[in-house]
Amino acid sequence: MDRVYNFSAGPSQLPLPVLEQAQRDLVNYPGAGCSVMEMSHRSKPYQAIIDTAEKTLRRIMNIPDDYAVLFLQGGASLQFSMIPMNLARQGQTTAYAVTGQFAKKAWEEGKRWGNAVAVVNGKDTNFARIPEITPDMIPQDAAYLHITGNNTIFGTTYNTLPDTGNVPLVCDLSSTILGKEFDVSRFDLIYAGAQKNMGIAGLTVVIVKKDRLTDDLDPVIPTMLRYKVMADNGSMYNTPPCFAIYMAGLVFQWVEQEGGVKALEERNTKKAYALYDYLDQSQVFHPVADPKDRSIMNVTFTLPDDEQTAAFIKMAAGRGLTNIKGHRSVGGCRASIYNAMPMEGVQKLLQCMKDFEAGLRE
Amino acid sequence: MDRVYNFSAGPSQLPLPVLEQAQRDLVNYPGAGCSVMEMSHRSKPYQAIIDTAEKTLRRIMNIPDDYAVLFLQGGASLQFSMIPMNLARQGQTTAYAVTGQFAKKAWEEGKRWGNAVAVVNGKDTNFARIPEITPDMIPQDAAYLHITGNNTIFGTTYNTLPDTGNVPLVCDLSSTILGKEFDVSRFDLIYAGAQKNMGIAGLTVVIVKKDRLTDDLDPVIPTMLRYKVMADNGSMYNTPPCFAIYMAGLVFQWVEQEGGVKALEERNTKKAYALYDYLDQSQVFHPVADPKDRSIMNVTFTLPDDEQTAAFIKMAAGRGLTNIKGHRSVGGCRASIYNAMPMEGVQKLLQCMKDFEAGLRE
Repeated sequence: MDRVYNFSAGPSQLPLPVLEQAQRDLVNYPGAGCSVMEMSHRSKPYQAIIDTAEKTLRRIMNIPDDYAVLFLQGGASLQFSMIPMNLARQGQTTAYAVTGQFAKKAWEEGKRWGNAVAVVNGKDTNFARIPEITPDMIPQDAAYLHITGNNTIFGTTYNTLPDTGNVPLVCDLSSTILGKEFDVSRFDLIYAGAQKNMGIAGLTVVIVKKDRLTDDLDPVIPTMLRYKVMADNGSMYNTPPCFAIYMAGLVFQWVEQEGGVKALEERNTKKAYALYDYLDQSQVFHPVADPKDRSIMNVTFTLPDDEQTAAFIKMAAGRGLTNIKGHRSVGGCRASIYNAMPMEGVQKLLQCMKDFEAGLRE
Repeated sequence: MDRVYNFSAGPSQLPLPVLEQAQRDLVNYPGAGCSVMEMSHRSKPYQAIIDTAEKTLRRIMNIPDDYAVLFLQGGASLQFSMIPMNLARQGQTTAYAVTGQFAKKAWEEGKRWGNAVAVVNGKDTNFARIPEITPDMIPQDAAYLHITGNNTIFGTTYNTLPDTGNVPLVCDLSSTILGKEFDVSRFDLIYAGAQKNMGIAGLTVVIVKKDRLTDDLDPVIPTMLRYKVMADNGSMYNTPPCFAIYMAGLVFQWVEQEGGVKALEERNTKKAYALYDYLDQSQVFHPVADPKDRSIMNVTFTLPDDEQTAAFIKMAAGRGLTNIKGHRSVGGCRASIYNAMPMEGVQKLLQCMKDFEAGLRE
């Protein structure tokens, strides 16, 4: 079976040159006499790998020196707990913008630790829009406002960051990091699971303002959930997810070789709007997300009924275009077109949609 | 550079056939049209991978049906917190056998949640021995007794499990799992980081008696740290460390092909005693661990002084025998000879020791 165009929301397609390099070096990493997977994390070759990964990420995201970069485990879901535990006192008010399923999960988890308040809740519009947030809506004693930068399931995104006044902004960037440019200094903390736009599952990147790191935390908080411990130990308080960090490092280098995040954002915008422009005039396919909040990473759309949806998914799969079925909570279809999805894959999907629509007219 | 014999304590050497198979299938997994790293964890091909991994592990370890197998993240270090949070009420007495550095870390972390009592502390003998534990030493209201099955740093192990009376036994098997046979039914919970004998860093396997799984936990405990949530979701409450689970599955299959854990235990015993027999009569190299508590996984030894130690490590490295430097807290040397280290590697190390000793006599 040939390699497909994989539109999975995550884990998702990786750049082919990255996979090929990993394959070439898998059994014997140049100069090391062993696989990256076999290296002691305390060895010089591995230290060079993790240092290079961090440096490259700092370069491509323009991360200021007063931010720490942490390579952690547990996915965004563990960050839902680590954020309140590290940035708020137990019982303190924390604010959440509930704009989708993962945003809601973050809020629910926040309630275990703090007085987590939903500032907005997109449930009323079936999460097809990002509700407007103004500073007066945010409790001024909130430790932070948590937003989900991009809602993978619904295909919505913040095309403009909310004004939070004096309340620090914390953001889940799992599905947009490296896919579009961000001014890191706008946030106190950014986090992202690696398996969408940065690498493979099992790695979470946290970018946090150094002045938010503190040892003065509730003693009940596990050592492994303390950002400062991880920062003080260069993400190696214990054995890190070595191979996942290596893969992310290769992806960071690939991003740089492709012209950086700005160039990829331009390419991603072209890819997404090739689809949106078609969706806006189609008689069969209908876009889900409100035009002003459309994501350039996840394009969601529906067909008139389940039968046509199933027929289209089958037709696409037959052309090597996989994983376009929408999330079970929304239905319809979703094309996740992260950095590693080339324009060619998007063009093939577009052609498939056109052929499907033409077939219905015959 | 040719592949070396890697005596690292972890991450450590992997079976070459496992690495070669992973390399062959890295870019395009048979029948999938993508890499394992690119598969949605909700896809059929990935479900088959994780199911096969669990089934194979159950077979090779004879895991009874009333035990759940969980594939988690965060290493043994996160288990140090999850165990008390899941198995004890806040403030409840928990018991620990402090037999090494990681055993001490587990105890320290246990104190954050419970009244963690050290039943024995091997500090007085520099952790060269496993102190004897009798049922009367363990508080009868303890939620469990936690032991570290094998102390990687000191090269000591429980060659006989302690009698704990009615107190459930919990065990860190990170450095012996699959290296020797265990009767799983003796434990309420076993856990192990994968990067020594099971695969790569970024995966922790937990084997827990199903009747210990409960939703009735303190609300403050993060969802991600709840065993029952992980068990109810087949280790996929969120995106699991997919590739690390795949690699572990390949290692489990390799163990089975090699004749199973019993056959590997016999081979490991031969490997270890080839070294111990030499150490017991050498005038230069001295074994660290007490004979009754010797590990077949990590063989620790010293030389008369730092200069000779450095010279020996250099000589070994020149012969492609790497990572034999002991842990900084013990000094000397350590040969970690997990399942993937062939007898040939041990023989080459032995020859190097003999040649070094002969060289000193000339």
